[in-house]
Amino acid sequence: MEKVEDQNPQQEEDQVVNPWEVSAKDGGKIDYDKLIDKFGCQRLDQSFVDRVQRLTSRPPHVFLRRGVFFAHRDFNDILDAYERGQKFYLYTGRGPSSEALHLGHLIPFMFTKYLQDAFKVPLVIQLTDDEKCMWKNLSVEESQRLARENAKDIIACGFDISKTFIFSDFDYVGGAFYKNMVKVAKCVTYNKVVGIFGFTGEDHIGKLSFPPVQAVPSFPSSFPHLFSGKDDLRCLIPCAIDQDPYFRMTRDVAPRIGYHKPALIESLFFPALQGETGKMSASDPNSAIYVTDSAKDIKYKVNKHAFTGGQETIEKHRQYGANLEVDIPIKYLNFFLEDDAELEHIKKEYGAGRMLTGEVKKRLIEVLTEIVERHRRARAAVTDEMVDAFMAVRPLPNMFD
Amino acid sequence: MEKVEDQNPQQEEDQVVNPWEVSAKDGGKIDYDKLIDKFGCQRLDQSFVDRVQRLTSRPPHVFLRRGVFFAHRDFNDILDAYERGQKFYLYTGRGPSSEALHLGHLIPFMFTKYLQDAFKVPLVIQLTDDEKCMWKNLSVEESQRLARENAKDIIACGFDISKTFIFSDFDYVGGAFYKNMVKVAKCVTYNKVVGIFGFTGEDHIGKLSFPPVQAVPSFPSSFPHLFSGKDDLRCLIPCAIDQDPYFRMTRDVAPRIGYHKPALIESLFFPALQGETGKMSASDPNSAIYVTDSAKDIKYKVNKHAFTGGQETIEKHRQYGANLEVDIPIKYLNFFLEDDAELEHIKKEYGAGRMLTGEVKKRLIEVLTEIVERHRRARAAVTDEMVDAFMAVRPLPNMFD
Repeated sequence: MEKVEDQNPQQEEDQVVNPWEVSAKDGGKIDYDKLIDKFGCQRLDQSFVDRVQRLTSRPPHVFLRRGVFFAHRDFNDILDAYERGQKFYLYTGRGPSSEALHLGHLIPFMFTKYLQDAFKVPLVIQLTDDEKCMWKNLSVEESQRLARENAKDIIACGFDISKTFIFSDFDYVGGAFYKNMVKVAKCVTYNKVVGIFGFTGEDHIGKLSFPPVQAVPSFPSSFPHLFSGKDDLRCLIPCAIDQDPYFRMTRDVAPRIGYHKPALIESLFFPALQGETGKMSASDPNSAIYVTDSAKDIKYKVNKHAFTGGQETIEKHRQYGANLEVDIPIKYLNFFLEDDAELEHIKKEYGAGRMLTGEVKKRLIEVLTEIVERHRRARAAVTDEMVDAFMAVRPLPNMFD
Repeated sequence: MEKVEDQNPQQEEDQVVNPWEVSAKDGGKIDYDKLIDKFGCQRLDQSFVDRVQRLTSRPPHVFLRRGVFFAHRDFNDILDAYERGQKFYLYTGRGPSSEALHLGHLIPFMFTKYLQDAFKVPLVIQLTDDEKCMWKNLSVEESQRLARENAKDIIACGFDISKTFIFSDFDYVGGAFYKNMVKVAKCVTYNKVVGIFGFTGEDHIGKLSFPPVQAVPSFPSSFPHLFSGKDDLRCLIPCAIDQDPYFRMTRDVAPRIGYHKPALIESLFFPALQGETGKMSASDPNSAIYVTDSAKDIKYKVNKHAFTGGQETIEKHRQYGANLEVDIPIKYLNFFLEDDAELEHIKKEYGAGRMLTGEVKKRLIEVLTEIVERHRRARAAVTDEMVDAFMAVRPLPNMFD
């Protein structure tokens, strides 16, 4: 059973999770079980991981096998269809509100690249420059500039240009896309968006108008240059779970306007260096590792700011071991250290007090530096011509090969 | 002083005038003086008529000299600029909710054609197929079909293709137009649109999203193919006064996003055959003369349904004369009988009881039949290729000649 009723975050007394705010009660941790229950999505259990491995004949991505992507809606339908020989398409996106991305921003893109490669399916990536222009009060021009800059970071994740269409809303809204926006908007009342997103009467109508813009890439008819005549194609959306409200709304509307409900596969939030109390804060550069950070920055941030579960003194640490539940270096390694055996070894030794915090941090600094350096090299190789090519409105004749 | 505060028609106890409803108190007549006062626009007095005649070196249109266009906002600024040698552009539109137009629908187009010819200025005509899809619950396809059909009637009014761009929102929304929509939407809160338009929480967000769509043709940058580099060009909007709320909102926002406020020239409503209590009703075909009516239809409707101020018996009529204040044939002749002397003669003779209702109706039937026949011939000559040509997104190099 899927819950589609409104969930007004304004009326919740404990944690708040919506596309613009993620905060736990009293600065505690996000309770993901409660969130699944409140949102009405499903846990992504081990049977899905096994099934994906079997269907794609490759090891499941670390984000999948370690539960970073932990919840879903109708992912089983996508896999059933895929097993019958029916392909689907992927849709993800980013709100371009800042120049530099942090590692948390890369997670959906890294995972989407894996899904694209594993399932051999096309992908649309929406850059919501209109949203950021409205929410962050950026000028149209600045939002568009940031969209292009962010597109370079996204392309650097290694997407296949023969299967990928990146678009900015300011460029692409119109035509079939706008028609679908109107169809969606007709099905959603003001009271409904207040229930889902917690808008107030003093919010501007741009905010009220936006949810259909994020909804309609879920429908293949919004991309006639890609999916003409393929109205039946299913859509799978990898995203962080704070985006769920948009797609709850979309799934509610879809059957009323003759479309499939999009399926979702949803991730945890990547924690701040200071501890797992929500998402990272763009206003505090020391709360996150940015893809523009130097090796020195990374070393400083991890050593100075990473919250750990190690004990106060070496003696106590040797005696009691580290509290892995709250330890940020371990959490970060859980996302980014690919070697399962090494991760298990570190957790075991560190948890038993035989490994010290400094040693774990040292390994984390190596892992993060390598990822950031690799990203920097890949991004430096992305030219303006490549951005234009990814963003060109064009057919993708080999998108299912 | 211009009033820009909210005017919630829901809270008014007497007449209601907004883009979707026009009704007087207790079925009486619309009080236009009160409306001017409530909306905060200005009376268009004789000095304007004289000035337009002087500036354009041609007789003012019958709608101007007889007060059909009776109110304005900043029309003086348009004329001041024109006198200094600065041109402007015209913007009008139609919501394509029905196949056949009635004579009331033609009034803004007839007048706009006169303005285009007299001032030699370009014109944009918006067909709000998105609006009608949302308000009338038409399908996207049906709204677009009606937009094209209505475009034929509009073209039949004789617009100059070298100076006229007709567009449907479903076709044209996007790019520079969408960017301006977002800029406008950012400046208008939900509470504000409730105040202006009387929306409720159960209205869908498509309705709340629409006002910026009707607002942005007021800004030249919404039409880069026409007005690139002419951001300073002023806009004059001829429309019926029920559209004033949209442009009150637009004028409020314009200076905040760096644009001129559009000027307005606003008409009375064309009365129903049954009497002057508001606009004609699309649901009652006998309340209006349609451009598709045959000569026989017109004769039947005028003779059978036109409310008159004539007396019950010929004796009483000869004695008291007709009450011209409520007489629909006289009101219709006031719109459509171009000969001032003849109209004065009829009013004098009919008012004195020397002319009978049947004679006035007979003359009205002649006048209306001629207009409708002329329109029918002109519309029959409008080909699909002409519609395509008027609606093509193209520069208009001779638009100011």
